[in-house]
Amino acid sequence: MAADSSRPVALVVGAGDATGGAIARRFARGGYAVCATRRNVEKLQPLLDRIRAEGGEAHGFASDARKEDEVAALYEDIEARIGPIEVLVFNIGANVASSILEETARRYFKVWEMACFAGFLNGRQAARCMAPRGKGTILFTGATASLRGSASFAAFAGAKHALRALAQSMARELGPRGIHVAHVVIDGAIDTEFIRGNFPERYALKDQDGILNPEHIAESYWMLHTQPRDAWTHELDLRPWIEKF
Amino acid sequence: MAADSSRPVALVVGAGDATGGAIARRFARGGYAVCATRRNVEKLQPLLDRIRAEGGEAHGFASDARKEDEVAALYEDIEARIGPIEVLVFNIGANVASSILEETARRYFKVWEMACFAGFLNGRQAARCMAPRGKGTILFTGATASLRGSASFAAFAGAKHALRALAQSMARELGPRGIHVAHVVIDGAIDTEFIRGNFPERYALKDQDGILNPEHIAESYWMLHTQPRDAWTHELDLRPWIEKF
Amino acid sequence: MAADSSRPVALVVGAGDATGGAIARRFARGGYAVCATRRNVEKLQPLLDRIRAEGGEAHGFASDARKEDEVAALYEDIEARIGPIEVLVFNIGANVASSILEETARRYFKVWEMACFAGFLNGRQAARCMAPRGKGTILFTGATASLRGSASFAAFAGAKHALRALAQSMARELGPRGIHVAHVVIDGAIDTEFIRGNFPERYALKDQDGILNPEHIAESYWMLHTQPRDAWTHELDLRPWIEKF
Amino acid sequence: MAADSSRPVALVVGAGDATGGAIARRFARGGYAVCATRRNVEKLQPLLDRIRAEGGEAHGFASDARKEDEVAALYEDIEARIGPIEVLVFNIGANVASSILEETARRYFKVWEMACFAGFLNGRQAARCMAPRGKGTILFTGATASLRGSASFAAFAGAKHALRALAQSMARELGPRGIHVAHVVIDGAIDTEFIRGNFPERYALKDQDGILNPEHIAESYWMLHTQPRDAWTHELDLRPWIEKF
Repeated sequence: MAADSSRPVALVVGAGDATGGAIARRFARGGYAVCATRRNVEKLQPLLDRIRAEGGEAHGFASDARKEDEVAALYEDIEARIGPIEVLVFNIGANVASSILEETARRYFKVWEMACFAGFLNGRQAARCMAPRGKGTILFTGATASLRGSASFAAFAGAKHALRALAQSMARELGPRGIHVAHVVIDGAIDTEFIRGNFPERYALKDQDGILNPEHIAESYWMLHTQPRDAWTHELDLRPWIEKF
Repeated sequence: MAADSSRPVALVVGAGDATGGAIARRFARGGYAVCATRRNVEKLQPLLDRIRAEGGEAHGFASDARKEDEVAALYEDIEARIGPIEVLVFNIGANVASSILEETARRYFKVWEMACFAGFLNGRQAARCMAPRGKGTILFTGATASLRGSASFAAFAGAKHALRALAQSMARELGPRGIHVAHVVIDGAIDTEFIRGNFPERYALKDQDGILNPEHIAESYWMLHTQPRDAWTHELDLRPWIEKF
Repeated sequence: MAADSSRPVALVVGAGDATGGAIARRFARGGYAVCATRRNVEKLQPLLDRIRAEGGEAHGFASDARKEDEVAALYEDIEARIGPIEVLVFNIGANVASSILEETARRYFKVWEMACFAGFLNGRQAARCMAPRGKGTILFTGATASLRGSASFAAFAGAKHALRALAQSMARELGPRGIHVAHVVIDGAIDTEFIRGNFPERYALKDQDGILNPEHIAESYWMLHTQPRDAWTHELDLRPWIEKF
Repeated sequence: MAADSSRPVALVVGAGDATGGAIARRFARGGYAVCATRRNVEKLQPLLDRIRAEGGEAHGFASDARKEDEVAALYEDIEARIGPIEVLVFNIGANVASSILEETARRYFKVWEMACFAGFLNGRQAARCMAPRGKGTILFTGATASLRGSASFAAFAGAKHALRALAQSMARELGPRGIHVAHVVIDGAIDTEFIRGNFPERYALKDQDGILNPEHIAESYWMLHTQPRDAWTHELDLRPWIEKF
């Protein structure tokens, strides 16, 4: 891995899925040294290779986003070896459905730990890096469940509501310190292997743009980052034209 | 403690503060055998004494609402020894303020564990008792932070948002099963020792009804419980007349 | 019509439907001299008769709630002849559906005029009566459409959103002046002739409490009015237990 | 005025203020034949001149956006003489403050007529043009008052809430017909003559990007229009970094 990058750093936590990967590539194309994390760093290799093949700079990190020590070490390492982190994208979810009657305490906790607590650990660490510099962008990925609780989604909605509260609280505290905190509500199926495999009829809507293209999601994240500070967006939604809402 | 009560059971989790105590007394006056919990059961004695002096039935339980095993045991014990739980009031909060930059992982977790995870454990357990009987009432205490994240309140707002998502998810699943799930947004200072001691100017508003009287909060919980099922309220707010909102 | 009533006055604007009628009767039972309005005052007779038969005091007024002069005259008349208005219930709706492509300007205007502008005229007039006395209650009837716009409901949702904004604005200004302004979101079919005639399958849910009983709606209005001022509710929802939301 | 434009048409209703003007110029730069309306068409001349000087195509129209006939004639005229309308931006507001006690019926009506009814007339007309073609973009300008009613803003909040309900209703009906309907919540002072003249301390924040630059607002409108249909935004907010919210 190269020493000190001359490019600003964009850290994508949860770069393992199609969305995180597309966001990483978008920021690389925008001139950022992308730092991508995943619990299993080997699985990041194809993404890193692709970014480099596209002429970008990419660094992979094994990191469990739910562990305070690992998160602290990650930010220290990146700031020391790659450069100052200018952008954090937190893109970890954990959507599972269950009747409240059968929900387990373990799963309820795990969903929160993954989708919210990891967001807190990373958001706080990024804010600590950015605040003294008076600039930076922190973007959180939300979902429909960020806005309403539904039958069978107590765990996921709880975690996503809490993440949205985190984004709001951070925006209100950190905006006046020069840090742009935004929250993206993704409402609809995304073009991923998971949807292709598990919801084939849903996936068939792809032909008519009925599922979200990760590249287009990534474009909105990039747009949020590049907004001038007199006209920041805190929250926007993204959904396919035919999606009911 | 008496064996099998002839009265229906109302369980108040978090009966330690003025609000929980007033709710417990209200349900006792309404003819319920009140089961009140607190980590330190001795501290419940004055409340139990008062309920009994008012002619009501009250039972105290030491129980850590955040421990799955203790919660399961509590419900089993009550259903076995006192009677079927018809009402659960979950009234535990944990309001602490901190800049996101200085918030600790431990406190962020604790606030969630107390205000949300304990709500899940108790809500689920109550639902498991009530669902087979096709009736029951589950009431959650919310706050302004349930609706918006503010600077310095990432932890509390996160936990309260998640609790509200839990209440919504449960209402949508359990309403059609005969269980009334509601969420009360308390927006303002309550007449408590804590406010008296720490916010004396706030407390001085009491003379003009500028802080919430726990008895009046309790009345709204009772009202929610007694609504006929064709006209249930899922959410209401409570605030003093002079409170800004 | 009797001169000066010794009872406080509750004015129900839009007493023509089952909900308004039940509210009028509830306040009459609570000791209020009820003033009920309808464009065609003769149609009020059965309601007035019923209230009187139940031992209450009732006065009927022909008044077009959308006409500033008529509204001003109404309030003047009531305050002069019956007594000080302590309660206003504004209960006029106008739910019609239409594709936006076929919505007419006339209907879009009429729906707003009925459901919102009349609410403004009456709310303002009541506030003018109440403000100098430093007390009073103003209750607005809302609907699901108060909270979200749906396909084919641009007119109704627009009017209802505007009415909710009125209720919020008034609550924030008038609360600290001692006037309790609240908004009730009724979400579901009500037990009316209209539903019986036009939605028979819906109406059949009545057997299992699947449609709202106007008497129970009225009870919530009464509850709102009687809340002590340290614990006022600004908004609550009402829906049958089996209603999806 | 040129006959049939070879460029697609963007209609900006309410092009008289700095925001509308900047949006008009942005769409002109993007290759659109801009049609700008204002009650007094002469006042549009500087904007038209500027667009043309920047190499764009611009057409001015005198039109009272609140008059059904004028609106219908405007769309017919543009479609006949300039080309198919692909974009409508509705940017008329009417922010005035008044205690509810002193609000006049005339002003309450006028504010709604301007900020909401004109939006309905234009939105519907644009939808009628666009629906048969299965494409188009309709953008509404909102404000903080779109989301909450405040003391002294019953009229403005009412109109803006109703406009937002219109945007939502139209999005839900027209999205699946290929028309992108979006709503922009502008939360903060904009760099205008009005703010400069009336709120000089506010205006002084311009030095630190504390008021919104109309060019940057315009960029967000353009971004909304160019989103691919698998990832449409229905609502976003825009505010300066130091704005409290």
